Amino acid sequence: MSADDDRAREQLIDLAARFYDQFEQGEVPSMSIPTRTKSNIEYDEEADVWVYGDRESTRSANSVRGAQKLLKAVYTIDFLADQLEQDRSSTLRELYYLSESWDNDNAQFNDQDESNQLVEDLEIVSEVTREDFHMRPEESGAKVMGPLRIREQTNRGAREIHCQDDVGQGGYQIPNNPDTIEFLECDAEFVLCVETGGMRDRLVENGFDEEFGALTVHLGGQPARATRRLTKRLHDELDLPVTVFTDGDPWSYRIFGSVAYGSIKSAHLSEYLATPQAQFIGIQPADIVEYDLPTDPLSDSDVNALESELEDPRFQTDYWEEQIELQLEIDKKAEQQALAARGLDFVTETYLPERLDEMGVL
Amino acid sequence: MSADDDRAREQLIDLAARFYDQFEQGEVPSMSIPTRTKSNIEYDEEADVWVYGDRESTRSANSVRGAQKLLKAVYTIDFLADQLEQDRSSTLRELYYLSESWDNDNAQFNDQDESNQLVEDLEIVSEVTREDFHMRPEESGAKVMGPLRIREQTNRGAREIHCQDDVGQGGYQIPNNPDTIEFLECDAEFVLCVETGGMRDRLVENGFDEEFGALTVHLGGQPARATRRLTKRLHDELDLPVTVFTDGDPWSYRIFGSVAYGSIKSAHLSEYLATPQAQFIGIQPADIVEYDLPTDPLSDSDVNALESELEDPRFQTDYWEEQIELQLEIDKKAEQQALAARGLDFVTETYLPERLDEMGVL
Repeated sequence: MSADDDRAREQLIDLAARFYDQFEQGEVPSMSIPTRTKSNIEYDEEADVWVYGDRESTRSANSVRGAQKLLKAVYTIDFLADQLEQDRSSTLRELYYLSESWDNDNAQFNDQDESNQLVEDLEIVSEVTREDFHMRPEESGAKVMGPLRIREQTNRGAREIHCQDDVGQGGYQIPNNPDTIEFLECDAEFVLCVETGGMRDRLVENGFDEEFGALTVHLGGQPARATRRLTKRLHDELDLPVTVFTDGDPWSYRIFGSVAYGSIKSAHLSEYLATPQAQFIGIQPADIVEYDLPTDPLSDSDVNALESELEDPRFQTDYWEEQIELQLEIDKKAEQQALAARGLDFVTETYLPERLDEMGVL
Repeated sequence: MSADDDRAREQLIDLAARFYDQFEQGEVPSMSIPTRTKSNIEYDEEADVWVYGDRESTRSANSVRGAQKLLKAVYTIDFLADQLEQDRSSTLRELYYLSESWDNDNAQFNDQDESNQLVEDLEIVSEVTREDFHMRPEESGAKVMGPLRIREQTNRGAREIHCQDDVGQGGYQIPNNPDTIEFLECDAEFVLCVETGGMRDRLVENGFDEEFGALTVHLGGQPARATRRLTKRLHDELDLPVTVFTDGDPWSYRIFGSVAYGSIKSAHLSEYLATPQAQFIGIQPADIVEYDLPTDPLSDSDVNALESELEDPRFQTDYWEEQIELQLEIDKKAEQQALAARGLDFVTETYLPERLDEMGVL
C-alpha cells in the first residue's frame, strides 16, 4: 500500500472506530455531516470556490432507518478498507451491485442513489476523496496534447509518456485517478482547456501546442472529475496559467465555471478540483461583435440561463456582467468552430494569440 | 499526398468533370444518388449488412434550387480537393462555417444539415468515405488496451505504440481516422468490444487483456465511426474474432447491431464499418436467469424496442428470437456491472471465460 492509500484507509477505519467508541461508552452511535442542500452552500470569497456552510445533519442509530444507514456505512467502510489493502479499485455501480453479496440483508443498498450518496458522505466526513478510496468514475477523463513528460503509475507498472512524442493524434488519455501521474518535465507555457473535440483537433492539426507551448486539455463538454483534477494540478504544481476556451453561450460559461470555481453539487471537493485562477478566453460576446462571427439567436432557455448567471456569485465581476449584458443585448451566441468562417487557421494564427496577449498569458 | 489521398482527390475531381462534360454537351448538369429513405434500404442477406436499393433521385440544375445544390457541391469539391492536396483536414461543422467565406453567396450553406447531407451525398456518389476526404468527426473514437503494436501516421510524424506497454491505464486513444494506423505485431487472440467505461476499467484492472490475449475496445455507448472502422480492420486484416459485451437490454443489442450489421443511417458505409462476423457475448437474457443477476423490470419503451427488434431482419435468427422472447417473458434487464453481485472477479474468472468457451472463441 502506498502512503496515500494507507492514510485513506486509516481515515476510514477511524470512522468505524468512532462508532465502536460510542457503543463502548453506552452512547447511541451517530455521524454528523454538513447539510448538503443549496441553502447550506456558500461562496467562499477568499478561496473563490463553493464550500459548505455550518449547518449539520446527524445520522443516528436511534431509529431503524438511521441504524440501517450506519450499518451500510460500516459495511462500505469494510469493503473500501479491503480494497485499499489489496490495491484494487471499483466503480460506484459495482459497489451497489456488490452489496448484494454481503451477508447481512439490512446492509444491502436499495438503489444506486443510496450507495452514491453514502460514498459522498464518507468523502465529506473522512476528508478523503472518492479517488483515494479507489472508487473509479464511470465517466472517462479527457485527453491531453502538449510538451509534458509524465510518469503514470498504472496497475501493471510505471509508464513514462511524453504527451506529444509518445502518443497518437488522439493524445494522452487521462486515467481515472490523475493523482497516479507524476510530472517529470514540462516545456509548456500554459494550459488551454478546450470544450469541443472539433476545436481540439483543429488546434492539434495546426500544431498550436508545438508553436505556442500550449498544453491542450480536451474538456468534452462538462468536464469529468479526472480532467478538472489534472487541470488543477497542472496549475498548482507546475505554475502554469490555465485558460478555458469554449463556445460563446451560457452553458459554456458554466463549463468554465466548473473548471474555475467548482460546482454546488461537489462543494466538498472544490479545494481538490477547482482552479480559481483559470481565465476565460472565449468565445466572448465581445468577440461575436468584433470578429463578426456567424451566430444563432438566443433561445428562451439561453436568456434564462444568462439571467441566472448574472445572479450567480461566481459571475459577479465587472468582466462577466459586461459580457453577459452585451450578449443579452445583441441576442446572439456563437460556437468555437464559427471562427472557421475566417479560415481554418484564423483561430491559431490570429484569435488565440491576440486573446492570450490581451490576457497577459503570452 | 499519399496514394489514398490522391485517389480520393481524383474521384472528387471526376465528379466535377462530369458536370463540365454535361455543360460541354449542352446538357443540363445533374447528379444521381440512391434515394436515402428507409423504404430504399435493404438488408443484404449475403453480406449481412444494410445496403441501398435501386431507387435513385436526381439533383438537376433545371431549377434554381437544384442549380444551387450543384453549385454548393462544386464549391465543396473544390474545398475538399484543396484540403487533400495540402494534407489538411476539417470537421463537418468547420465546413459549414467556412462556406461563409466563399465568394459566391449562393454557394453558402443555409444550415449545417445541408452541408452534412451534401458530404454524405458526395461519399455515396464518389465511393470515397468522409474520412478519406479528411473530414473529421466531432465525436472521438474510443480507447484500446491489449497486446497489439501499431504505427500511427500522425500529422507530426509516425508513432509506434504498443497498446499495453506504451500507454497509461486509459489505453490507446483511437485517432479520428483509424486508417492512419498500421498493425505491426499482434499477440491478441480476439477482440472484446465493451460497452461501458466501468466494465472496460474492470477488465483492465483485472488484467483480462494480458491473461486471455484480449484486445479490449471501449465502445462508450453507441460507437463512433472510428471505433467501428478499427474493429472491422482488426477482424479483416488480423483475422481476429470480434466479440461484443454490453448491458442486457434492447438498446445495447442495438449497439451490437451497429458493430455487426451497420445502421440504416449509414447504409452506404456498411462495407467500410460493419463486422458481420461479430458475436454477441452478453449480457444475454439467459445469463440473467442462469447467474441470477440483479435486475430492473422492463419499461414500456424497453418492451417496444424488443418487439421492434423481433421485426428487424438483423435479429431474425433462432438465437436472437429465443433470447428476446425469453427477455419479454422474464420481464427483466440487467447491466454488465451487475455481475459484480458475484464478486469483482466473477466477470473475468468465470463469466467471460465460460461464454468465450461456449462461443468457440477460446
